[in-house]
Amino acid sequence: MSNPIKRHHPGGSLSRLVEFGNLVFVAGTTADNRSASCKMQTDEVLKKIDRLLADAGSDKSKILWCNVWLTDIREKDQMDAAWAAWVDPDNKPARATVESRLATPDTRVEIMMICAK
Amino acid sequence: MSNPIKRHHPGGSLSRLVEFGNLVFVAGTTADNRSASCKMQTDEVLKKIDRLLADAGSDKSKILWCNVWLTDIREKDQMDAAWAAWVDPDNKPARATVESRLATPDTRVEIMMICAK
Amino acid sequence: MSNPIKRHHPGGSLSRLVEFGNLVFVAGTTADNRSASCKMQTDEVLKKIDRLLADAGSDKSKILWCNVWLTDIREKDQMDAAWAAWVDPDNKPARATVESRLATPDTRVEIMMICAK
Repeated sequence: MSNPIKRHHPGGSLSRLVEFGNLVFVAGTTADNRSASCKMQTDEVLKKIDRLLADAGSDKSKILWCNVWLTDIREKDQMDAAWAAWVDPDNKPARATVESRLATPDTRVEIMMICAK
Repeated sequence: MSNPIKRHHPGGSLSRLVEFGNLVFVAGTTADNRSASCKMQTDEVLKKIDRLLADAGSDKSKILWCNVWLTDIREKDQMDAAWAAWVDPDNKPARATVESRLATPDTRVEIMMICAK
Repeated sequence: MSNPIKRHHPGGSLSRLVEFGNLVFVAGTTADNRSASCKMQTDEVLKKIDRLLADAGSDKSKILWCNVWLTDIREKDQMDAAWAAWVDPDNKPARATVESRLATPDTRVEIMMICAK
């Protein structure tokens, strides 16, 4: 029998967090304060992700893989500054950062993750 | 000994579906009818994915993670309309939707998934 | 108790390779020789990935899922030529290839992977 799948915070189109076995999938997460800079939006996104991971009994020391999308790749330094202040220095995940236009024009950053629990 | 890997529908560059343990990976899937609207292309892609998941003994109630790429993010409402008519309302996956130019200019949407089985 | 997570080649922001259970996550990998063509950059990236996978006791016959980002999707044929010369013909992974601007303007290709071990 397959492991059960546990879905958290279901909304109109997606669940914000999905648990399966010892894996946790975090949906693409964006900031509510879309007038903020890329750095400040990243700060907000990472705080949101902390809360989501806690819902699954996981935390940022257990991130395996992370995909970061930036509206403007030239703002990568801003994202990296927020990231460096947040990431567990002993447990850095694999990551890719690329440019993509996002759902609203003033969204500067979107982050998804696959974590262990 | 590692679990066996089962690869379905191998083509020139990739396999359309890969099973490993209780995980199923669906390749980036696009519509054949590229003259259709984003909504209609999404309908076709999701029907293709139904068939692929069935090949692995999975189905849309077991999607864990989904990445949607749109040629024009302003067509997200069209994709979401097709998605809403298809997704299992009790089993919505984690998802991210971003804009990327795709392999052919008239391809409006490409979708990949990681599912449970 | 959860499986241990093993992180390889930690750098400023990320680890180049992360092992968890029988899964291996390869970070977005780019070429050092950024004056090279897309084809040559892909050749270099795939050689780097061979070395990374070996560090985890895996190899290209065990790739499950691959995401390729190209700075210019019109160079997909160049990427595919390098890919075809490299991929294990009996073990092609699920894959998606999309266009995204990457961290430096002369980077033509970035590749991430999820593999079995």
